[in-house]
Amino acid sequence: MLADGVCAQWARLVVVGDRRVLELGQQIAGVELAVQTAASPLEARWDNEAVPIVDMNNIDPCEVPQGGVSPKAGRAAGETLVHMTELAQAGELDAITFAPLHKKALYSGGFEYVDEHAMFADLTGWEDYYSEVNVIGDLWACSVTTHIPFRDIMTQLDEQAIFDTIVLVHETRQRFGTPDPRILVSALNPHAGDEGLHGDEEQTMIEPAIERACELGIRAEGPYPADTIFRKAFAEDCDAVVSMYHDQGRVATKLKGFLKGVTITAGLPVVYTTPAHGTAYDIVGTGTADTGALVEAVRLAARLARRPIT
Amino acid sequence: MLADGVCAQWARLVVVGDRRVLELGQQIAGVELAVQTAASPLEARWDNEAVPIVDMNNIDPCEVPQGGVSPKAGRAAGETLVHMTELAQAGELDAITFAPLHKKALYSGGFEYVDEHAMFADLTGWEDYYSEVNVIGDLWACSVTTHIPFRDIMTQLDEQAIFDTIVLVHETRQRFGTPDPRILVSALNPHAGDEGLHGDEEQTMIEPAIERACELGIRAEGPYPADTIFRKAFAEDCDAVVSMYHDQGRVATKLKGFLKGVTITAGLPVVYTTPAHGTAYDIVGTGTADTGALVEAVRLAARLARRPIT
Repeated sequence: MLADGVCAQWARLVVVGDRRVLELGQQIAGVELAVQTAASPLEARWDNEAVPIVDMNNIDPCEVPQGGVSPKAGRAAGETLVHMTELAQAGELDAITFAPLHKKALYSGGFEYVDEHAMFADLTGWEDYYSEVNVIGDLWACSVTTHIPFRDIMTQLDEQAIFDTIVLVHETRQRFGTPDPRILVSALNPHAGDEGLHGDEEQTMIEPAIERACELGIRAEGPYPADTIFRKAFAEDCDAVVSMYHDQGRVATKLKGFLKGVTITAGLPVVYTTPAHGTAYDIVGTGTADTGALVEAVRLAARLARRPIT
Repeated sequence: MLADGVCAQWARLVVVGDRRVLELGQQIAGVELAVQTAASPLEARWDNEAVPIVDMNNIDPCEVPQGGVSPKAGRAAGETLVHMTELAQAGELDAITFAPLHKKALYSGGFEYVDEHAMFADLTGWEDYYSEVNVIGDLWACSVTTHIPFRDIMTQLDEQAIFDTIVLVHETRQRFGTPDPRILVSALNPHAGDEGLHGDEEQTMIEPAIERACELGIRAEGPYPADTIFRKAFAEDCDAVVSMYHDQGRVATKLKGFLKGVTITAGLPVVYTTPAHGTAYDIVGTGTADTGALVEAVRLAARLARRPIT
């Protein structure tokens, strides 16, 4: 991705990380990169082929296992994300794209958050609503609850949270350049409860949240049964799907676009994007990784930052 | 489907229902069928073109709304299923295939079950474990809990229920003709709990159930994250997926095979199959219904009955 320069059309890239890891990556991918070290993004130059790197000098790849969970690697990843966030808050970065990270490694490295999105909210001092959004082609997907135990879903799901998610998706999609997005909202119960036969949260929580959103002029509709909503969304002219919980949304998006999906942390003052796929420890070092989703993550980050290349 | 005789290669069909509904269906589909009325399947003959029908004479299609939920239609559907079950128990039918039915209509028609599978279990006096299985091509999918409110899933999910479902899928698949089926078992929590970070039911319930199944010689494996298990199942040589709850399994199967999927009620002494898609009230009377799943449902029913055509 760095070697073929494909992202230069959208963004001026600065790598933030350990230079030794970048060198190892070149070996594995079988490419050679000219690299320039920059103390900060402000010092980086894009008038030549050399890829700028802010060298964190915080992890020797020889000291951690490849293709496994390591607290040391998790700490280095966390430190890097902290530094990038500081750079973004200082105006030196317009957006942050990070490669897939392992939540457990991050946690064991001392960053004890339920996921990276909670970490970013904490780092940016954000106390309002935020959520991750999954992007597959033209379709966005967001769930009201995400990385929590299944048994806790019902305690965190209510009308307000559903409403907040609809508004967040609407506003983020607008920021992305879709003035009047159409948003499908999922049911919670099987077959949307079969008219009250299998649960009533459609009537008590979801419909009221949709109505409130519609009153604000948002094009939200539903609730639609979760097992066919993505079929509808992919078939029709639709911009986003709001699901109630993680797997309800992810099954479809991962099935449709495993290698292309991107995750956005939506709602925060800093733009974060990352490939939606996982760390793929099983193919580490084989040189077979597909960079499609990472490239797409950079493209989306650039579009969300909306700062034209000068 | 009746007009083109496609199912004759697998089964000797008898229609059970109201003759006037079959006539209306012919008008809509634009076909003409020769029909013979039989008091029971034992009287039916297959040595000519005429389709045998056991005329229930229990519903005038002019008296119920087309494309809507009607208690009268639900009662007629329920009566027909009761009669077919009696015929099967008497040895006059080897298997039952029914067109999509509306659970709420059935319920309002006086058959107050959570779904048709519970009704069939009651009708056959079955008190042991049973479940519905969804079939998409060569892949079978079954969930431990099905048509219950989402909030009740955690109260009904335990090691025994998971174990029972694995065994049921294994045995039904064997009956279908797969001697040593490979069964993937889904996790419950997002990312299979990220090693305990988001819930521990993988360790406390699912792994023990898989281990018990393996001790019986069943090729069960997992738990695999729900958002990628179907991707794995479709890509690899795999016979079945066991999910923990309805939408976890149905999102993928409906996305993959909306028009071809079949549902089997597995575990009961009588074979029941039906298309996995819904009643499609929106296209009633348009003559555009695709019979693919119904044909497939007959084919599977015949194979499960395993009684060669004589």
